[in-house]
Parts: sequence; structure tokens; C-alpha cells
Amino acid sequence: MKGNIIVGQSGGPTAAINSSLAGVYRTAIDRGAKKVYGMRHGIQGLLNEDYIDLSEHIQTDLDVELLKRTPAAYLGSCRYKLPEIHEDIATYDKIFSILDKLEIECFIYIGGNDSMDTIKKLSDYAILRGHPTKFLGVPKTIDNDLALTDHTPGYGSAAKYIGTSVKEIIQDSQALIYDKGLVTIVEIMGRNAGWLVGAAALSKGEDCDGPDLIYVPELPFDIDNFLVRIKELLAEKTFVVVAVSEGIRLADGRYVCELTDGVDFVDAFGHKQLTGTANYLARRLAQEIGCKTRTIELSSMQRAASHLASRIDILEAFQVGGAAVKAADEGDTGEMVIIKRLSDDPYQSTTDLRNVHKVSNVEKVVPREWITEDGTYVTDEFISYVRPLIQGDVSPVMVDGIPRYLYHKKK
Amino acid sequence: MKGNIIVGQSGGPTAAINSSLAGVYRTAIDRGAKKVYGMRHGIQGLLNEDYIDLSEHIQTDLDVELLKRTPAAYLGSCRYKLPEIHEDIATYDKIFSILDKLEIECFIYIGGNDSMDTIKKLSDYAILRGHPTKFLGVPKTIDNDLALTDHTPGYGSAAKYIGTSVKEIIQDSQALIYDKGLVTIVEIMGRNAGWLVGAAALSKGEDCDGPDLIYVPELPFDIDNFLVRIKELLAEKTFVVVAVSEGIRLADGRYVCELTDGVDFVDAFGHKQLTGTANYLARRLAQEIGCKTRTIELSSMQRAASHLASRIDILEAFQVGGAAVKAADEGDTGEMVIIKRLSDDPYQSTTDLRNVHKVSNVEKVVPREWITEDGTYVTDEFISYVRPLIQGDVSPVMVDGIPRYLYHKKK
Repeated sequence: MKGNIIVGQSGGPTAAINSSLAGVYRTAIDRGAKKVYGMRHGIQGLLNEDYIDLSEHIQTDLDVELLKRTPAAYLGSCRYKLPEIHEDIATYDKIFSILDKLEIECFIYIGGNDSMDTIKKLSDYAILRGHPTKFLGVPKTIDNDLALTDHTPGYGSAAKYIGTSVKEIIQDSQALIYDKGLVTIVEIMGRNAGWLVGAAALSKGEDCDGPDLIYVPELPFDIDNFLVRIKELLAEKTFVVVAVSEGIRLADGRYVCELTDGVDFVDAFGHKQLTGTANYLARRLAQEIGCKTRTIELSSMQRAASHLASRIDILEAFQVGGAAVKAADEGDTGEMVIIKRLSDDPYQSTTDLRNVHKVSNVEKVVPREWITEDGTYVTDEFISYVRPLIQGDVSPVMVDGIPRYLYHKKK
Repeated sequence: MKGNIIVGQSGGPTAAINSSLAGVYRTAIDRGAKKVYGMRHGIQGLLNEDYIDLSEHIQTDLDVELLKRTPAAYLGSCRYKLPEIHEDIATYDKIFSILDKLEIECFIYIGGNDSMDTIKKLSDYAILRGHPTKFLGVPKTIDNDLALTDHTPGYGSAAKYIGTSVKEIIQDSQALIYDKGLVTIVEIMGRNAGWLVGAAALSKGEDCDGPDLIYVPELPFDIDNFLVRIKELLAEKTFVVVAVSEGIRLADGRYVCELTDGVDFVDAFGHKQLTGTANYLARRLAQEIGCKTRTIELSSMQRAASHLASRIDILEAFQVGGAAVKAADEGDTGEMVIIKRLSDDPYQSTTDLRNVHKVSNVEKVVPREWITEDGTYVTDEFISYVRPLIQGDVSPVMVDGIPRYLYHKKK
């Protein structure tokens, strides 16, 4: 590798995306890159010529280790979709003139579906113009909904956080309740795919029964069935814990979080207020069964909890970053690095490449056969798939009792 | 110690309450107790003669270590306030007849203010009747609002979780936002005392600016001032993070979470819906400033996150449990064990005893001088107080990627 590299991050933060950045940086330096630039806030920042020289930020091996343990997106993220090439060629000319100015041999973008769309368009444009820069995609999303790769970096750490937190919530519930029923509804991310909510089943083991019900967004949600199941469970036990995806929908396609049970909640400006999925279900339970309820949204902690990252996830994130640099250096472009699972037990994986045209804008959902027939749990096959991805820990570097991160030093 | 011991847990779960149970058990066995019973769900279970023999549950040293790492309340908790002695002597006679049947020499109750009220009444009754059983209280609450003790076991671990999670949320916020303002409001437990919300300041360090504003429940909350401060902050930076106590109130005493900005949110049964504190403030911001907002409730994870427990907290919880057994064995009764801080740096503490009559039903709040003059942050003195309590980690015993707990084996 003789020229320079530029790398960017895009889409929702994860606990592992900075480990991919570390993998890109370290491999680029090892392979002789002169400069490794980082786009600030992805392609949106690059269009404003907002970038940094990463060697000013990552100066020691300890910096690399801190970066691997730093959640969110060190470079800043964006949600910016490039226009189609034929619609706005000026934007492309601008990007390529900046790349030329910086003598960029390789452009790496770490992200999900939208980011792979960016790689696709930029590599198409380069081929169209005979431009030598290589464009490579590195997968990242807690949602695990990218096609062609066995799983996405970021998912394993989110799954570990969800399994652990749901187990703690179950402990909390069973301690509280002696003779009255309590239904706890835990709302988990994942608008269209049940990979995250299914990870609640990881809490199950000989020391914990796991949640009683798990509702994925892949199947239509039937509120009457839900009420019946809860009544049955409350007849047997004093507390019930339910994990629901934020994206569950009725058979008619309406999101549960958009329902208002016939009563419009309207604010001072006359806007209809959306209630959360868990809050809506809790209200229905209170109204129709009269049981005690509480709702817990795992919220953005799911994607930012680097203190509970999975070692496998952080290592694989680092590897896919490095594999992208290697591929570019060997002449590949318009490809996304994927993870191939070689075996479950012992778990082994490797990296490979797939053409981004085949990747982008296809959402991978949980297969029907990995959801129980009645649609209220995931199967053992699902658990066998996710279990290897949460193995091992990455001990945070604790300073004064709190995890330390790599940060942008103020000048 | 020649007779038997019985121990119970009461009030809200914490990450450290089972470490106190472990301390009680281990010290009782070491001092020669014949049997160590555990009340199921505190005094409420005891009244139903619902108790276990702890030696059937804690059989090995590994069991003790697992118990120290198990969140919530191994024995089950309750919220049950004993009647006044003169109002209902039959209840007391019943409790004492059960204690006599079990040959209880020492009764230990781990809990907060209400639990100390239980110890007070039972020890008063014993003295009144010349009954030999000793009654000792072991402090526990994440709220840290018990009087006379420097701090309460459970608080340090909750503070560590809050400091760490708020830091992760700040990372998440700054990654997301490039050129538009985002206000994140994090709602933290503590109805009347700001010890927990103040711990959000622990996120501050050379690698993190900490939250921009912290609102404790000790001072009246002024919504107009709040809106002005947010506007000022958004003029300077792209994202703002605010930590608010769930218990903040207006100058007229109304809780912010009870406000509905002139619009009643009424459900199908005509019941007024309460909105959360953070949700209310976010709605006001959206209405009056028009900025993007999001709300995050740290919820019961604050009190159940044993995977991020503070080592100091878990050790001290164990010690106060042991100290209660020792005190009873030496003839003390009607006392609560307290923690005395000997020095901040290096941190040193010891245990002592205080008469429960002086403890119960007094709430300890954050001193005014530990809150900044404008009421929107905690001072360095506050941080110096809490910092030692979050030091050190207790590595979870991970089995298949998830923390393992001690559990009730099914027979």
C-alpha cells in the first residue's frame, strides 16, 4: 500500500464499531499506508472537508486498546444517503476531487445497509470514470439485519447486554413480588428483525427461567392472544416478564406503538402522541386484567454498553476492519467484508468478500423456523446461533471506577 | 453463639443486598450458630411461617461468591410495615411464637427506613416482654437516604452503573449529531434525595464532559429557567445531555411527572395518565424550542446491575452483615450497623452501631452546599464523597457468556 486511506462511520452507534476503526487503522499502518484519514460524521462531513489525521489521535498501543473499548462512533456518525449518480453528478465530482486532493487510494465505510449503498454508488462511479480509488464496506449494526454475512459486528455485544439485563430484570421482578401478580414488559430495539429481542432468551439457564414470552416483529401480533397468555401465566406464577420488539405490528400492518385504544392522546398543539409499544401493552393489561404492570425500555444502552461487550464481537469487528484494508490493497473494490461461520462448537469464523450490489437494501430477518410455532419464543436453533457471539469479555480500562475511552484531545 | 439465627430482606432490590446476606450467613456459621434461617419475603413471609434453612442453599465457598454477585434479593423482599405494638399485639405474639419455635437467638433484617422501623418495634417488644432474642438492622438502599450512616450498601454499585451508563449515553449522543441539536434527558431514580442523579457527574473526566445539567429533587425545579438553559446550551453545542431525578418538583410542591401542560391524558376508563418526568420535559422542549429530544429512563437496571457492581460496595455490604451477627452475639439489640468513613483518600471505613430509634423514618438528603448555587449540578465535594464508593470491580462468574447467579434449586 503506497497511498493514503480514508475511513468513515455511518448509521446507529454500536459497542463494536470503533474496534473496526482500530482494525482499519492498525492494518493500514502495518501495510505501509502513508496517512490514515478519518471522515468526521461520515460522508456528510467529508463533503464539508471535515476530516482528521488518525495518527494524531491513535499514538500508542494503549490508544488502540482504548479505541476498541470506546462505544458509539469515534469519528462521529451520520444518516446521509447519496443521491443517484445520474441525478446529481456534482456531488460525486466534489467527493472525488476531495479524495484526489488527499491522494486516497482506499475509501472504507463502516456501517449498515445505507452505508453499503454509499459504497455501491461510489465504487460504481469510480469504475464509470476509470478512477483508481478502491471502495470497501465494513458491516456494522446491532440489528444484525445485513444480508450475506453470518452476522454483523455490534450484534454480539448488544445481545450480551440484552441477555444480561433481562436476567437482572427477572431477578428484580421475582424479589419484589410475594402474592400479587406483576407483569414486566421489556421493550427491545429492532424495528423489522427479531435478532435483538430474541437475545432476551440468552438469560435462560439453570439459574433463571428466562422471559415468559418473546414477541418478534417478523410475525403479526395478536393482542387478544397476548391477553389470554398473560392471564394463564398469572394463574400459575406471581410475576411475568415479557420481551417485545419495538416494531411489533398487528395483522393489518399497524405498529402497536401507534395504537391508542380508541382514546387519542393529544398534546397542547393538537398533535397525536405516540405511546411506546411496551407502554401501550401495559395500559391494555391494566385495563383488561387489572394486574400491576411496569415497562422497561432498554433504550440506547443496548447499542452503547461497551462495558459489557462480547470479546468475540470486538475481535471480529477488528478483523473485518483489517480485512477491508487488505482487500483494497490487493485490488478489490465495491465489496463488503462478510463473516463466514465455519462451525458452532467450537465456534470458528473467517472473513470473505461479497459484491455490495448483492448486499445493499436487503433486510435479513429471523427465519420462521427459529421462532416457535405459536410465535411467542425463539427456538434452540436461534440460541445456538447467537450463543457463540456473546462469548468472552473485554475488560474495560477503569480509571477512578469508570470505564475510560479514547477521546479527541482539545488543542 | 449457641442458638439459631434468622435473616430477612425488605424493600427495593439492590446489587449488594445479597452480599450482606452472605456476610450474615458466613459470620453466623463462623461464630457457631446451629441454624441460619432465611425468611422468604421478609416479615410478611415469616408471618406465614415461610422460611428456608440457608445451609441447604449455601453449601460451598463458590455458593458464597455467587450469592455476593446475585442481584435483587435472594430471599425475596416485601414492603410490609408492622402495626404499632399497642394497636395489634396479636401480630407480635405470633411473630415471637414462631421465633421461639425456631429457637431464634438473633433476628437480622436487611433493608431501608421501613425495615429499621421493623427492627425498632420488634426490639422494643422484646425488651417490654423480657424476651432474649436480639434484633439487629443492616442498612441497604440504592437511594442512600438513611440517616446516621456515612452511606448505605447498594448505593455505590448503583452510582457506578449510573456514571457508566450516562457516559455511554453521552458517547452515543455525540456520535449521532453533526449539525442539528439533540437534547437527551436521562431520568434517574431517587424520589426525595439526589444521591443517585448526582452520580451522573461521575461520567465527567478528561475523556468526557459529563452531563450538561443535573437536577436534584432537593431544590424546586423551575421550568422556565430550564428552557432558557437548554436554549443557551443549544446555541453552543450540537447535543445536550440532562440528568433529572424522577422526583423533581415545582416550587408549589407538584411533581413534574404529574404535570400535563393543560392537556389531560385520559385513558378509556377516564383515569388521568401520569407521564414520566423526562417525557414531560421532552414534550415541553419540543413544543417551545422545537428541538429534537429523546428520553432514557435508567429504570430498575440501576438497582439490579450486579454485572457492574462496585467492589467497595460489595465488600462493605458483606462487612455490615457480619458486623450485625457479631453485635448480636455480643449482646446488642435494637441497633443498626452503620458505616463510618475514616478517610477519603486513601478511602478507609469501619462499622459501628446506632440505636434504631435514632435511625428510622429520617431521610438523609444531599446537603445544599454539595449542589451548585444555581441548582443545576453537584459540586466537587459531592464527587469526592461518592468517588471512593464506586472503586473496584467484582468480576461476574460468566457461564456461556452471561453472569451466573445463586438460585433456589428445584426439589
